[in-house]
Amino acid sequence: MLFKPRTDEMLYVLTQVVHAERLLQALPAHAEVDADLMAQLLDESGKFVASVIAPLNRVGDETGARWHEGAVTMPPGFRDAYQAFWQAGWPALSAAVEDGGQGLPAVLEAMLFEMLSGANHGWTMAPDLLHGAYECIKAHGDDALKERYLRKLASGEWLPTMCLTEPQAGSDLGQVRTRAIADGRGDYLISGTKIFISSGEHDLSDNIVHLVLARLPDSAPGAKGLSLFLVPKFMPDGSRSAVYCERIEEKMGLHGSPTCVMRFEAATGWIIGQPGRGLNAMFVMMNSARLHVALQGIGLLEAAWQKADAYSRERRQMRAPGRKSAPRAPMGADLISEHPAIRRILDSQRAWIDGGRVIAYRTAVELDVAKHHPDASRRDAAQRWCNLTTPVLKAAFTQQAFHGGSECLQVFGGHGYVREWGIEQHVRDARVTMIYEGTNEIQAIDLLLRKVIADGASSFNLWLDDLRADLDSAQPAQARLLARLARLQDHARGQVLAAARDDALAHWIAQDFLRAVALVLLDWAWTLIARTGQAGMPRWRAPALALERWIMPELQMRLGIINAGTDGPPVAVPDTKPDP
Amino acid sequence: MLFKPRTDEMLYVLTQVVHAERLLQALPAHAEVDADLMAQLLDESGKFVASVIAPLNRVGDETGARWHEGAVTMPPGFRDAYQAFWQAGWPALSAAVEDGGQGLPAVLEAMLFEMLSGANHGWTMAPDLLHGAYECIKAHGDDALKERYLRKLASGEWLPTMCLTEPQAGSDLGQVRTRAIADGRGDYLISGTKIFISSGEHDLSDNIVHLVLARLPDSAPGAKGLSLFLVPKFMPDGSRSAVYCERIEEKMGLHGSPTCVMRFEAATGWIIGQPGRGLNAMFVMMNSARLHVALQGIGLLEAAWQKADAYSRERRQMRAPGRKSAPRAPMGADLISEHPAIRRILDSQRAWIDGGRVIAYRTAVELDVAKHHPDASRRDAAQRWCNLTTPVLKAAFTQQAFHGGSECLQVFGGHGYVREWGIEQHVRDARVTMIYEGTNEIQAIDLLLRKVIADGASSFNLWLDDLRADLDSAQPAQARLLARLARLQDHARGQVLAAARDDALAHWIAQDFLRAVALVLLDWAWTLIARTGQAGMPRWRAPALALERWIMPELQMRLGIINAGTDGPPVAVPDTKPDP
Repeated sequence: MLFKPRTDEMLYVLTQVVHAERLLQALPAHAEVDADLMAQLLDESGKFVASVIAPLNRVGDETGARWHEGAVTMPPGFRDAYQAFWQAGWPALSAAVEDGGQGLPAVLEAMLFEMLSGANHGWTMAPDLLHGAYECIKAHGDDALKERYLRKLASGEWLPTMCLTEPQAGSDLGQVRTRAIADGRGDYLISGTKIFISSGEHDLSDNIVHLVLARLPDSAPGAKGLSLFLVPKFMPDGSRSAVYCERIEEKMGLHGSPTCVMRFEAATGWIIGQPGRGLNAMFVMMNSARLHVALQGIGLLEAAWQKADAYSRERRQMRAPGRKSAPRAPMGADLISEHPAIRRILDSQRAWIDGGRVIAYRTAVELDVAKHHPDASRRDAAQRWCNLTTPVLKAAFTQQAFHGGSECLQVFGGHGYVREWGIEQHVRDARVTMIYEGTNEIQAIDLLLRKVIADGASSFNLWLDDLRADLDSAQPAQARLLARLARLQDHARGQVLAAARDDALAHWIAQDFLRAVALVLLDWAWTLIARTGQAGMPRWRAPALALERWIMPELQMRLGIINAGTDGPPVAVPDTKPDP
Repeated sequence: MLFKPRTDEMLYVLTQVVHAERLLQALPAHAEVDADLMAQLLDESGKFVASVIAPLNRVGDETGARWHEGAVTMPPGFRDAYQAFWQAGWPALSAAVEDGGQGLPAVLEAMLFEMLSGANHGWTMAPDLLHGAYECIKAHGDDALKERYLRKLASGEWLPTMCLTEPQAGSDLGQVRTRAIADGRGDYLISGTKIFISSGEHDLSDNIVHLVLARLPDSAPGAKGLSLFLVPKFMPDGSRSAVYCERIEEKMGLHGSPTCVMRFEAATGWIIGQPGRGLNAMFVMMNSARLHVALQGIGLLEAAWQKADAYSRERRQMRAPGRKSAPRAPMGADLISEHPAIRRILDSQRAWIDGGRVIAYRTAVELDVAKHHPDASRRDAAQRWCNLTTPVLKAAFTQQAFHGGSECLQVFGGHGYVREWGIEQHVRDARVTMIYEGTNEIQAIDLLLRKVIADGASSFNLWLDDLRADLDSAQPAQARLLARLARLQDHARGQVLAAARDDALAHWIAQDFLRAVALVLLDWAWTLIARTGQAGMPRWRAPALALERWIMPELQMRLGIINAGTDGPPVAVPDTKPDP
């Protein structure tokens, strides 16, 4: 079965749970965005995704991108679909009107990419970088660069890449060795090898715009010595630049997206922003990019869930408990959707998907609030929200895409392991999301070390207050959430104190802290859902119960591990030879 | 890097932790088995596995088994390796001497298959069925069948299959439709289609012996109407029988093992055991087969761990916390093995592997005790041990192979997702072990419903007493384990009482119960390790600390879920149309 965007459910979360309309209308830039416009846009994008992108998912996996003598041929249908996509104006959704965009809120673009990722993760990799590259050049490019590249990226006519990683420089970008040398005429010559470059070469678009992290001569060592450059595949005069795709990787999944080794041989480029401020120029898009990866996770999990749900309503095996006295079922067997082990899987994954949407859509709205709200303190609050939720969303929902996708595969029994049903592709594709755009371990350190401990938990405490807004301690479920928020606050304070004694301690339990925050956020999301009109329907009631019974017990476990972790590192740092 | 069996560590667990020598010497059949013999045998098998089987792992994945017009060609090198394997006498290890075997204990065979699975899961699938088929025919076959097939299976000259599953009959074998009709001359004609038949067709051996579950005319409906038949690929007169391989499945992994659709077109066969007792004849091998699947999990996790451990000692990224004031490391970066997030993964998986070996090797020894001990009550205790630990081992260690294997993949960052390093193959291969030989959900129901609740927890309580043997409550760690055993006993009693009220309740939390038992068993295993001479060495101390700090906290969570589950099912059984 093909993935089908359930835009009605997405819209319900956006308007009835997150109340995006109210939040957006406080922003002059989006005052015109009403529920009708959002509904219409989601409906149209859902149709496009279902009819054009979803049908190419299987061929993307099975044929894959192919490399031959430096050129990459995308799977059949991919180029036509991409040409239709940009020409219909989808990439321009949230680009500024003055750049040829539609100027719509980031949340609508985020929801479009959630659907695209569920429909066809491989195809979606290339356009998913567009908006970040556009924002980066808009914020940091000089007028000449903007003149040449901004509208092409806003429209999606040309696709971008992000060239960061090198063989010796993965999580540790300070080790980047690619060099840039000024040629004396205002241009730079870039030389080096980059790996793991998604969409580094392909035939989707007529040009490719590489954003490349490189080191100028005599620059400081480490991350501070890095600058960002733009290197096009085709130069403004139409000539081919000296950037080559050496090969593409054979991967566990995501075969529809070429992962390229790129060689820059004194390729001509231009600096984006200031020398030595390359990471800064890239980090402008980090929250947005990480949020999009979280939405890939949600989209992939929704796709896996749809398949498992449909299968569970067709497949009969054995009598379900409590059904033994019922009239005889066909073949003496009940639908597996009636078996507790299967119900538990389906309802629990539903709790993650729906709750994840609440958190992610709200965060996407806050990205716009941070940019456009007239009140500086509200902008600060929105920035705080994004800084704190983004690593949590990225790590928790990519993990869930893989682990929850594997649970959905289990619903199929042996049929889940064979390619025919398509469920195993989602699991293979999802695995990489736990690694790229900052590994999930890096996200946990980012959250606990840089965003909680670094300022003595003051931002974190203010953000907890934001989550407490509107909660009513007279309602039992909300009182329970308030108690959980208070425990998070206690544990954050505990970490600040422990870090003052030993700054290694937090590294051991950073992932438990992130996980605890994710669980409390999920509880918060379902508290919002519980206030809506449909909360009592089985569609929403079953996941809400699954959340409390099967998912939330992990919170206590994580907090216990965090407490034990403040006693000291569990194992001495292993002996290694002295550093030379 | 290739998998390398660490037979020294396996032998340490077998002799110093499990004290297999002492347990086996109480059995007249194995009184001659001493530590030297076991050491020599493991050493030899380790060399064979490392030199002949491990090098074929990659080609098994990349080339895979190929189907053409009903014939299956195995990957290059597979047939030669199999011919060398059986001619060297490895399959005959634990077959009886009177059948041409070596009559050695089951635990040595189990350890051989742990190594084989770690080295090359795909190749190992075919011989892994040999011993079960041998035991089945030895226990239930008539003299004519034994005469023709027993020695060929004991030696491994001919390979067997287990033909159970059909399109409509997976976990629910009662729905098997394949028919058997007596031809009046003492033979049967078998007709039907079987799916998911591992090694249903191949070129490894010169004949294939299919064990086929089928239904005689006028048999009872459901599982009670099933009988077991032997259908050879080549008849005793050398003619080809009417069993055909229609196709092989495209799978997520395990490409080195052909998963076949087999069509029986009135193929000639002979009954094994009594009519209507087919499942009974198959179940004689169930504990042994499930134990072997658990050991596949342990072997696969060991293989993934070896790769991750080696990589972590080569790769440098960033300064590790606590190392900042140390002399400058090469490139200003420490080995990732020194980073807490990586250390935690490696030490935790080590805790699962080593603890799993203790439980699995002890269980393999108990299989022999159940068969050979002169004292009937000791045989009963051994049978109880096997009945209770086997589903736990199967579910917990196949889950760990996949989830822990994925953690090991994470150690590689982006390099883990590409094929080059080989780690992603282990994760893909491991996924199926959670499904076959009874899904992990089925294992949980088997444990809690059939083996704990069914007899009012009396076997379970006796087994807990076995685990308590030798524990000293004056030792803090052992007192903690005793307390955990008591909590398991309480929770089992709670489930017996709850089941008397509502027999559906246990189905909702069966997996939590199994998981709680697995964790306590792991604690028990490490308590045994702690008593050995090397327990204080970093090699054993680091995983022991990881177990207590990172793994055991799950126990409290599972017990909490079990308690909540006795309040009633969390969600009403969904409305479905009334049964026709």
